[in-house]
Amino acid sequence: MNGGRTDLARTDLTRFSINQMTVKQLALPELVDACVRSGIPGVGLWREPVQSYGLDKAARLVRDAGLTVTTLCRGGFLTATDSHARVGAIDDNRAAIDEAATLGTDTLVLVSGGLPPGSRDLYGARERIAEALADLAPYAADRGVRLAIEPLHPMYAADRCVVSTLGQALDLAERFPADQVGVCVDTYHLWWDDLAPAQLVRAGEGHRLHSFQLADWVTPLPAGVLTGRGQLGDGVIDLREWRRQVEAAGYTGPIEVELFNDALWARDGREVLAETVACFLEHAGKPPPEK
Amino acid sequence: MNGGRTDLARTDLTRFSINQMTVKQLALPELVDACVRSGIPGVGLWREPVQSYGLDKAARLVRDAGLTVTTLCRGGFLTATDSHARVGAIDDNRAAIDEAATLGTDTLVLVSGGLPPGSRDLYGARERIAEALADLAPYAADRGVRLAIEPLHPMYAADRCVVSTLGQALDLAERFPADQVGVCVDTYHLWWDDLAPAQLVRAGEGHRLHSFQLADWVTPLPAGVLTGRGQLGDGVIDLREWRRQVEAAGYTGPIEVELFNDALWARDGREVLAETVACFLEHAGKPPPEK
Repeated sequence: MNGGRTDLARTDLTRFSINQMTVKQLALPELVDACVRSGIPGVGLWREPVQSYGLDKAARLVRDAGLTVTTLCRGGFLTATDSHARVGAIDDNRAAIDEAATLGTDTLVLVSGGLPPGSRDLYGARERIAEALADLAPYAADRGVRLAIEPLHPMYAADRCVVSTLGQALDLAERFPADQVGVCVDTYHLWWDDLAPAQLVRAGEGHRLHSFQLADWVTPLPAGVLTGRGQLGDGVIDLREWRRQVEAAGYTGPIEVELFNDALWARDGREVLAETVACFLEHAGKPPPEK
Repeated sequence: MNGGRTDLARTDLTRFSINQMTVKQLALPELVDACVRSGIPGVGLWREPVQSYGLDKAARLVRDAGLTVTTLCRGGFLTATDSHARVGAIDDNRAAIDEAATLGTDTLVLVSGGLPPGSRDLYGARERIAEALADLAPYAADRGVRLAIEPLHPMYAADRCVVSTLGQALDLAERFPADQVGVCVDTYHLWWDDLAPAQLVRAGEGHRLHSFQLADWVTPLPAGVLTGRGQLGDGVIDLREWRRQVEAAGYTGPIEVELFNDALWARDGREVLAETVACFLEHAGKPPPEK
């Protein structure tokens, strides 16, 4: 026995993926190098740093390193009412889909967008997301990319994402074929919801579980509530139980750790990456087989 | 026509109640005086300022002024696992019930409590609330007081209230008689939830709507997310539509405005009270009858 701690030597990182935002202080080549040295097989990338580095160059870098790009973050922001803004959002999402295809990932994560200025109409905003998906989903499918609607915590409903629960995300996704539109399950956003377990089952039965992300919930929340996601194990979420339920629903894909945390960003990126791997194994890793 | 603005002269404040916390800079006698001068018929009181002023003195003050005490805020915090803390919480809630009875209000608002230190068990915490209610509900009923479970926004689930939706609050309340345990509907906490309208109908059919509170949602949220509730009309919540749905569900009681807002607290309390009345009439008042 090992006192309840995970025996690192007897686990593996096959399913682990590091989201680029967790260690955004690392330039892309540093991140790729650190992953290779650590035996990390997957990375979730963000559009802006990829564009800064150069899309084709980035695609080559990760491919040559043998890394899997588990997701591209992110498309979305599809709730505008202004027709010019709507056309712009569609164009931008088509570009994101093209970038995902170039990077070789099968999943583009969508953050749906908040209420347009002056609007109080959550229902209308959700309908406009569906209208945009009707355009984007077949475009993505033609390029081998699935769209993963990410419900964000209800504290973001006004200014970032009007899709707040897994149930709402599935209501939207199910209007489209499962191989075109699914969901991204992130523990940070969904941990509080007593309806989430049943919705995980629904998502699994419908083959809609396209991405699984981990972050822990710590308080107090910082001003703006964007950069206070906790390192795995530092907060109140039963991460191992979430992994169990997501896998029981049929998910066998990568498990991405995505932390937005000012304190982690202020530290050495390679050190944070090593810590994140250790925390993943301790708090969300598979328990070692019995001796 | 009046250009869409409410005609103040043709509305009334019969249903309006000011929660003491909205203008906490006013001492209780100032608050009572301001209410009387403004034609405000109801106040929601908080235990701490009432205790500071003196319970019996406070009860006499509001009674002599002809004010209705629409709620007492608040009991709750019933999620402890430690047996000593649990006994203390029951005692404290019995005291709150006694205070409510002395003040002549029929409604004690309950904020259920967050996760105990080190716990990740939301389900267990919710069960402990039910256990405590089994003790407190009959005690309250004997004193003419109803308990109103207030679901708080999911951003408070870890450290303040594990009951995050109206559905969860009703799941708890429905284990007890409707005249003993109901719910407090606060727009600030529930506005984002697409399941809330159906739950309002459920609450109304079960005669569980014991309190209705208004606050608006504004962003960005402040650090700690406690003191950023928006003045009515400043945010994204369709307050008039919420009032319509709550009334369609059968609610005919007071409508309390409860704002926690550092900027409002820094201003003259009587001025904030007058502004709050005007905002209530404009954004949540009954539309005037057609001429």
